[in-house]
Amino acid sequence: MRLRLTLPFLFFLFIPVLVWSQTMKSPNGLLELGFELNQGVPTYTLTYKGKPVILPSKLGLELKNKPSLLDGFEIFELKHNNFDEIWAPVWGEESQIRNHYHEMEIHLEQPSTSRNLIIRFRLFDDGLGFRYEFPAQSNLAHFVLKEERTQFAMAGDHLAFWIAGDYDTQEYDYTESRLSEIRGLMESAITGNISQTSFSPTGVQTALMMKTDDGLYINLHEAALINYSTMHLNLDDKNMIFESWLTPDAIGDKGYLQAPGQSPWRTVIVSDDAREILASRITYNLNEPSKIKDSSWIKPMKYMGVWWEMITGKSTWHYTDDYAAIDLNSIDYSNARPNGKHGATTANVKRYIDFAAEHGFDGLLVEGWNVGWEDWFGNFKDYVFDFVTPYPDFDLVEIRQYAKSKGVEMIMHHETSASVRNYERHLDLAYQFMKDNGYNSLKSGYVGYILPIGENHYSQWIVNHYQYAIEKAADYQIMVNAHEAVRPTGVGRTWPNLIANESARGTEYQAFGGSKPNHVTILPFTRLIGGPMDYTPGIFEMDISKLNPENNSWVNSTLANQLALYVTMYSPLQMAADLPEHYEKFIDAFQFIKDVAVDWDKSWYLEAEPGKYLTIARKAKGKKEWYVGNVNGNESRLSNITFDFLEPNKSYIATIYTDAKEAHYRNNPQAYTIKRFLVSNKSKLSQFSAPGGGYAISITEADKSATKGLRKL
Amino acid sequence: MRLRLTLPFLFFLFIPVLVWSQTMKSPNGLLELGFELNQGVPTYTLTYKGKPVILPSKLGLELKNKPSLLDGFEIFELKHNNFDEIWAPVWGEESQIRNHYHEMEIHLEQPSTSRNLIIRFRLFDDGLGFRYEFPAQSNLAHFVLKEERTQFAMAGDHLAFWIAGDYDTQEYDYTESRLSEIRGLMESAITGNISQTSFSPTGVQTALMMKTDDGLYINLHEAALINYSTMHLNLDDKNMIFESWLTPDAIGDKGYLQAPGQSPWRTVIVSDDAREILASRITYNLNEPSKIKDSSWIKPMKYMGVWWEMITGKSTWHYTDDYAAIDLNSIDYSNARPNGKHGATTANVKRYIDFAAEHGFDGLLVEGWNVGWEDWFGNFKDYVFDFVTPYPDFDLVEIRQYAKSKGVEMIMHHETSASVRNYERHLDLAYQFMKDNGYNSLKSGYVGYILPIGENHYSQWIVNHYQYAIEKAADYQIMVNAHEAVRPTGVGRTWPNLIANESARGTEYQAFGGSKPNHVTILPFTRLIGGPMDYTPGIFEMDISKLNPENNSWVNSTLANQLALYVTMYSPLQMAADLPEHYEKFIDAFQFIKDVAVDWDKSWYLEAEPGKYLTIARKAKGKKEWYVGNVNGNESRLSNITFDFLEPNKSYIATIYTDAKEAHYRNNPQAYTIKRFLVSNKSKLSQFSAPGGGYAISITEADKSATKGLRKL
Repeated sequence: MRLRLTLPFLFFLFIPVLVWSQTMKSPNGLLELGFELNQGVPTYTLTYKGKPVILPSKLGLELKNKPSLLDGFEIFELKHNNFDEIWAPVWGEESQIRNHYHEMEIHLEQPSTSRNLIIRFRLFDDGLGFRYEFPAQSNLAHFVLKEERTQFAMAGDHLAFWIAGDYDTQEYDYTESRLSEIRGLMESAITGNISQTSFSPTGVQTALMMKTDDGLYINLHEAALINYSTMHLNLDDKNMIFESWLTPDAIGDKGYLQAPGQSPWRTVIVSDDAREILASRITYNLNEPSKIKDSSWIKPMKYMGVWWEMITGKSTWHYTDDYAAIDLNSIDYSNARPNGKHGATTANVKRYIDFAAEHGFDGLLVEGWNVGWEDWFGNFKDYVFDFVTPYPDFDLVEIRQYAKSKGVEMIMHHETSASVRNYERHLDLAYQFMKDNGYNSLKSGYVGYILPIGENHYSQWIVNHYQYAIEKAADYQIMVNAHEAVRPTGVGRTWPNLIANESARGTEYQAFGGSKPNHVTILPFTRLIGGPMDYTPGIFEMDISKLNPENNSWVNSTLANQLALYVTMYSPLQMAADLPEHYEKFIDAFQFIKDVAVDWDKSWYLEAEPGKYLTIARKAKGKKEWYVGNVNGNESRLSNITFDFLEPNKSYIATIYTDAKEAHYRNNPQAYTIKRFLVSNKSKLSQFSAPGGGYAISITEADKSATKGLRKL
Repeated sequence: MRLRLTLPFLFFLFIPVLVWSQTMKSPNGLLELGFELNQGVPTYTLTYKGKPVILPSKLGLELKNKPSLLDGFEIFELKHNNFDEIWAPVWGEESQIRNHYHEMEIHLEQPSTSRNLIIRFRLFDDGLGFRYEFPAQSNLAHFVLKEERTQFAMAGDHLAFWIAGDYDTQEYDYTESRLSEIRGLMESAITGNISQTSFSPTGVQTALMMKTDDGLYINLHEAALINYSTMHLNLDDKNMIFESWLTPDAIGDKGYLQAPGQSPWRTVIVSDDAREILASRITYNLNEPSKIKDSSWIKPMKYMGVWWEMITGKSTWHYTDDYAAIDLNSIDYSNARPNGKHGATTANVKRYIDFAAEHGFDGLLVEGWNVGWEDWFGNFKDYVFDFVTPYPDFDLVEIRQYAKSKGVEMIMHHETSASVRNYERHLDLAYQFMKDNGYNSLKSGYVGYILPIGENHYSQWIVNHYQYAIEKAADYQIMVNAHEAVRPTGVGRTWPNLIANESARGTEYQAFGGSKPNHVTILPFTRLIGGPMDYTPGIFEMDISKLNPENNSWVNSTLANQLALYVTMYSPLQMAADLPEHYEKFIDAFQFIKDVAVDWDKSWYLEAEPGKYLTIARKAKGKKEWYVGNVNGNESRLSNITFDFLEPNKSYIATIYTDAKEAHYRNNPQAYTIKRFLVSNKSKLSQFSAPGGGYAISITEADKSATKGLRKL
């Protein structure tokens, strides 16, 4: 279904009016957008069921060395459009996505400069998207942004789930506070990171999740960040007005644009039901359809990795401790003494392959396989990796053949050390090397400060790099899972080979001192709004000192919570991150990780409250299998769900992996129980979840022989 | 002949002495280097025939966030070496180069930090080279330069030929002044350029040429600029001490180094005869031998170009005037209206091919052949060119076939618009495209400010780019002639596919308002010290308004001077830059350009005085042909030379192209005479050269039939 209606448009030719206004409702009529041109300044408002979401907020852009596009405007033309279609993503939380909006296209003219600007609003049932468009014109060709000055005026001192605005990291724990408290909490919110550049005591990142005192959930983010600087939000905490704060380049400029062109979409997702925030597809809908014609090579997958042992410090990425600095042009590793702790040895990798094969995993990631890790970050080193030369103890051919014989696909790892030019120089060879050796997917990393010095992780220039790497990977039919890259903005619709990102505080921080127990109840409302996250769940051993006596970190999660993450943290790429020996200890719980799907026909958001809990049910794509995940915040809680997402008049077997009564993320994380029941779509479950806990359920159609002795839920 | 002697070395183990000194003489004994460690600070001096060249000058480096390598040193070890060899360059002013020096290697230890630094001095008969070396050590691995603090203390207020220190251009006219006058003249020395970033009122560029009141000629430059920032010189004009001033990156850092590693060589060429400065091979000798094993594909060549007509504004690089901005991703040139002035049309290119073929030129350069020139510079545009897509009126296949049928090799043009990342992204495809289409040589350009923004033309990061482009070109067997790149430092020895650079004010400025008439008497003492220059001589029509009525530029040179440049401005790549129709008007004078060689067995520097005149004779490589060039400064002059460079007891025919008596660069530049004489190695010539004038001579062995009627000189 694809429908486009252009309504008769109004046409104004430089008719100066003091105030000109226009409104538009969402398809279901619950949201209303107001646009006003007041004394030449464009503003907008948004209400939901009559409640204010965005108070009058200014729109516009400040240019460098040119008159600004902030005021002095007149209405030139207005167009209304409707749009309604259903499209099928290559992978996703559902196999069919509806894209339904009312559109208003406001053509502004700035008579004093004879320049034109279009502001395009798309109003969906679940929120608003809008962007600036710069049509081709004689008086605006190339221009430099000093700042985008888009306001989001809040109607009160909302509760917010925020991380500090930063040009070089997104890897912070979330702070939950009133908007007015951000300033006072900023210092403690900025925890240490290998690269970090904060910019304002009231600057925060998107996606920003908020809750109002009158029960609205509001999410601010952006969609289709292409050839533009990443948007942060800076709060005027007297007036509770957020304003866009773009990421600058080395000289402080915020973007280089040309007409015709446009900004990314700025999004406001809103509902009085937190579950609707999770169900929103605005971010994808505002991106372009897939540019990959044949996407048959893009396959969701579950994988293991020679990784957690390095993250915890049990083993090392690097091969030798002999050198204070190495130069790949001249080093001869055959002369180096192995440090005896190198993780990516042929024998160790084969051990993982054996385990992954035995338990039906699709892939195995190996980090630290390639030369150069001895001084890999913190040195502003240009030529840090070549991406094609294995360490002497990593027999690439033997491993390739062994993995193939076992039916496990090897996953490539490209740590760039944020030396972006070096990576681009090697990209074609590195991708070709992957294809030559049977690797079809890739984890890339951008640890440390960006080279060239002065750039940062989220400026336009580096955003363009991430995009370049994704598009070039598509040429090679390679799937990309980029870590430390800019947080996603739905670009995975257009380039579905971007199967995941990290771009937030992932599981690794549980081995770097730990994350807050309720972290995973917030991420789906923030980071995941833009796209899937390679969160790397599945940690069964919470006491990291058991892996590495020098590491006193504790994984702030119960084992059942870890299982639930495979459902609640949507990703077409899911890792079982812990060591084989830990899974072998809890092989019954491990069964859930083995069973759970990674691609879905449909999702149901059963319970949700950011920072507190969320419960999601999903149907596996093309299969009669359902999976439920519940993750819980800092306090224990009773989760109440019904199974009405199942088909009626059928009987199913549900295997429920729950926290035991005495479970607790800190004191007793491995206390879990597994029970099996018969369920139907009338069944209900009232289930305890521990602090930092949760539960996971796998549901299959009941065949008679298997149901013997099972009781009904 | 290759000889290496290591003399017995002295060994000091942390013996604290207040002053420790050491001297070393050049092989011929005329230069003496003094090194002194005075209270822990390393200093050096240099004398020539007992006259001071460098007064006591400090050595050392200031590091960022680390203790400096400036003082607190003790002598750890001293080594003396001698070296003498003769090597054969792939191309050059002579076919055999002697590399003969005495070496002193001073190992310093800084006990307070347990760090080591080596200062290596090489003393040649014609000057000094020295560099810093950072041996592998546990307390110095990766480090950042805040500044290199190498001093060059002058013994007086010398006369200098200088251009303003600048991070983004070298394209200035030279100013001739006392050192003490630099500050006062700086403002007028900084003329406009598309990209320019000056840094100090007493900052100047190298190679810097000076003359002392007691008759010494001193040249300061660097050799082997590899993975390091370009060195400028900043003058303390109270004490007449130059200090190194490295080119910073976007955040002001001056270089990222690791041990083991080294700085480039700092060079001091000195003589009491200006001709010896021109004859010096120090810069090449301090570079590594060629890394290109089979260099048979590197061929000196003479070429023409569809270029001068764009430079003068007679035609355009771009195809259409329709667009204020274009985007190569979406533009469709088939919809564009041609502006009617596009230079690189198939018909026009074929006209040049015809002319080049008729007159025996090796190659033809065509600029503006590829899409993207409509908004190519000044806009900080990232994706500005793709380097492979011709304009619709440039039929690449037809031109390729036509050129081949005529025996003319097409020369590729890659203007990068200084968008360095974009160029690197396209480099492999662009080079492969060249090979696929029969192009073996390339002119590249870096017009405008560097992208990424904040970097500049001469920082370490961008120096590394130029080097990358050269080395990758070698992989494809492509010769590179890079314009606006960093001025050369003898790297053409190591990578002889770097056949030329611009990297100074070239002939194009004669169409941008003109250059000083004596400019070409200075360049061989400055810019050419580092390597060949694609100066693009051969302009016969000095009144640019005849090409383009809107351009009132005047070429400040006589026609005879233009001929002489093919001898005096050494390059294995020489252009005949003017239009075919101008050569047809002066076809007798054009004969010299047709005849002159581009590669040499031997060169004789007959007369030389920077800013005033120079006369050079050269023997064509492998041929019994000699060519002489004289270029003259602002005043008319009588040049007196003997032909003793010819073989004895033989008779030769000399064709002499001279300024006519009434010639003058401004009033009467096209007044020339051509005469033929019989000469022998006893012949003498006393020849008038006009202001901005000169003469050129071609000499061939006399065969009886051809000498009939010729009189002896």
